[in-house]
Amino acid sequence: MNASKGLPHVVIVGAGFAGLFAAKALGNTPVRVTIIDRTNHHTFQPLLYQVATAGLNPADIAVPIRKVLRRFENITVLLGDVRSIDRKSRKLFLEDGDAVGYDYLIVATGATHAYFGHNEFAPFAPGLKTVDEGLLIRQRIFLAYEEAERETDEARIKALLTFVVVGAGATGVEMAGALAEISRETLANEFRNIDPEKARILLVEGGDRVLGSYPGELSEKARESLEKLGVEVRLSSRVTNVNADGVTVKQGDREEQIPSRTVVWAAGIAASPLAKTLEVPLDKVGRVVVTPELSIPGDERVYVVGDLAHFEQDGQPIPGMCPPAIQGGRHAVKNIQAQIAGRPRKTFRYQHKGSMATIGRAAAVADLGVTKLSGYLAWLAWLVIHLMMLIGFKNRLLVVLQWAWSYFSYDRGSRLIHGMILPEAAEPLVLPSKRGAALPAPLAPRAVDRG
Amino acid sequence: MNASKGLPHVVIVGAGFAGLFAAKALGNTPVRVTIIDRTNHHTFQPLLYQVATAGLNPADIAVPIRKVLRRFENITVLLGDVRSIDRKSRKLFLEDGDAVGYDYLIVATGATHAYFGHNEFAPFAPGLKTVDEGLLIRQRIFLAYEEAERETDEARIKALLTFVVVGAGATGVEMAGALAEISRETLANEFRNIDPEKARILLVEGGDRVLGSYPGELSEKARESLEKLGVEVRLSSRVTNVNADGVTVKQGDREEQIPSRTVVWAAGIAASPLAKTLEVPLDKVGRVVVTPELSIPGDERVYVVGDLAHFEQDGQPIPGMCPPAIQGGRHAVKNIQAQIAGRPRKTFRYQHKGSMATIGRAAAVADLGVTKLSGYLAWLAWLVIHLMMLIGFKNRLLVVLQWAWSYFSYDRGSRLIHGMILPEAAEPLVLPSKRGAALPAPLAPRAVDRG
Repeated sequence: MNASKGLPHVVIVGAGFAGLFAAKALGNTPVRVTIIDRTNHHTFQPLLYQVATAGLNPADIAVPIRKVLRRFENITVLLGDVRSIDRKSRKLFLEDGDAVGYDYLIVATGATHAYFGHNEFAPFAPGLKTVDEGLLIRQRIFLAYEEAERETDEARIKALLTFVVVGAGATGVEMAGALAEISRETLANEFRNIDPEKARILLVEGGDRVLGSYPGELSEKARESLEKLGVEVRLSSRVTNVNADGVTVKQGDREEQIPSRTVVWAAGIAASPLAKTLEVPLDKVGRVVVTPELSIPGDERVYVVGDLAHFEQDGQPIPGMCPPAIQGGRHAVKNIQAQIAGRPRKTFRYQHKGSMATIGRAAAVADLGVTKLSGYLAWLAWLVIHLMMLIGFKNRLLVVLQWAWSYFSYDRGSRLIHGMILPEAAEPLVLPSKRGAALPAPLAPRAVDRG
Repeated sequence: MNASKGLPHVVIVGAGFAGLFAAKALGNTPVRVTIIDRTNHHTFQPLLYQVATAGLNPADIAVPIRKVLRRFENITVLLGDVRSIDRKSRKLFLEDGDAVGYDYLIVATGATHAYFGHNEFAPFAPGLKTVDEGLLIRQRIFLAYEEAERETDEARIKALLTFVVVGAGATGVEMAGALAEISRETLANEFRNIDPEKARILLVEGGDRVLGSYPGELSEKARESLEKLGVEVRLSSRVTNVNADGVTVKQGDREEQIPSRTVVWAAGIAASPLAKTLEVPLDKVGRVVVTPELSIPGDERVYVVGDLAHFEQDGQPIPGMCPPAIQGGRHAVKNIQAQIAGRPRKTFRYQHKGSMATIGRAAAVADLGVTKLSGYLAWLAWLVIHLMMLIGFKNRLLVVLQWAWSYFSYDRGSRLIHGMILPEAAEPLVLPSKRGAALPAPLAPRAVDRG
């Protein structure tokens, strides 16, 4: 395929932060590289909640993988779904049975949310890890308001205007803040039969504070900011059921049924099932327990990095965030280069830079280790750092412009409900609360439209 | 519902150009208005081909209907699918059986492409009238290149890299030009196993020239521009079959089978089926033959405007474009206002302003009646006029920026393949050429992603 055919072949599975930065580190070096992903784009997950809440376009936070890597002639990008890894023959198998051989392998297929053994919640409470999930959640949020405008039954209107976010990590906190802003600001004056400001936003968290991995004072600040925006924060509360009617929340011995048509799941971790095919020890959530060099026990040709890796440092697993993924991806590359050169490999040490989350307009919390910020200053820091990490100058420009626009106009630019293809004349349009499985109809050509 | 309850109730069905401009004309006047559309957005159809070819985001060319009309307190916007009209009881029926009564009705549900009695072509040759169709076509175009990069069989690669556009009206011409640019410019240097520049773009037209409604000299200029971009223009050619393998093209007595995995349909007209429920005379393609006042024969309370109307002027039906739709929508409103005031209605006269189409970067043709333009000047005119007609200052700004970016970088900003949800581990990923029905899988939560 490449001119670099005789060189060692490094295969990278997954083009998230870990995989993409590993590929970049191998660009124009004397190896042949193949990077395989199930989508054609790298997604900047920290801003996915802005796609879900109509602040940004998918293309603003996602870039074609082959565009990012275009200048590296030794890198081939393949769209494909790696289904299994056979370490004996050093081969990966794709969804259609195609095999790809490797000399060195970097597995970076990540993790997603988990329903704690209740996968039956999934159709009613989508998570937020991919562009498509972001668009699905966007569609449900805005469809709920649309249906409420047509509804006459008070109880149904209330359920349609109740939004529940499960899990108060960074994603959950950011989602809840944005949902509150949509109801209080974006949709103001647009409806005639309902008052969007009356929408109820609940944030349900099993732990006893929001942003559990942050210092206590920042958790407190974040809770205050959320409540100021009108979010009901329910701590020490578990979701014991989710169905088409709503959620059941248990706090202590008290169980409450909350009618809601829109539930967003932002809790739990489930590692990519590809990990299992490596046949090495996994942790409780299915992540691969890696060696200090980031390879797997007993096979120095296979590295696991990013959210799929379980790596302990100072007695604690390192967090599932962008910086450890980027650092891990780059470290794996250095170790592979050492192996090729016959040098000894090095152990990995994660440098923690900090963590931050926004809560609506002009409020955020940031734990930067040496200093803790909250409020406007933290929000500015959040803004600058997220822009810096976005890939592509044009994306940065477009995101800045849209943020500036939203900031001054209280508007959200991307409120399209699409992917909601209405069925042919013979079949009824199914609005969310009337849907059994709550899944949108498949994308199909339409006979007629309103243009 | 509204404070304006005792006032005459004007119902508008469809929020395309005709319906939206009718609603605006009725804003803050002493009537109660309800506008109903199947989507939550008004789509600027002349730029849909740029969504399909990844030049623009859906949100750049589509605005939420209720946002556009927010300042008019007498207007209620409903998301709904009007299935039938009962003129006796003056009621519309929505997809769930809900009824909406009217005093005056403006039907503006438009038209779409038609397969000339061959609806079995539809799954293999989507048309381009809605945002979702635009995204479906985008997905197919870029998936074809992705699959070709993985393919090893020469014949299959050739079929994957053959793109056929059926119909050489403005949409077909613009699609073909953009497809050529994607292959020659956008994707250059991004693939290792295939050469995107070798992609073949065919434009098949039944008539004897492209842009058949334009003056002959502009048709000729457009054909030259297309061929310069590398588009094969096949005139006087009919498509007699489309299936998963490609298209059959008949020219005179010669029939040719062209293997292709990506076919875009930009021919024919089929009126919205809602017209049938009016029980009045329709033309051959199902449009309502309206009176000189734009109402239907024998019922002065019901107006039909935009692409759904068949209105003859100087012995010719007026074209299905934005300006006649806007003018028609506004004229219907004036006649309704006259009826309410007890004044006589006026007959409609369409003012033709001209028509224009682009062919790739910096080339276009424009027929402005008094003057005919082609080349760079026509392209500038096209650009300015389309920007002026876009709704929303922010959209104009974002579109200008993205066009400027594309113009100087030869890049296309929105090349995401999404809505392509990959199935769970148990099911194979189905790439386009392996799909029987060629339809994407339904949007469903994914167990795992690569982030």
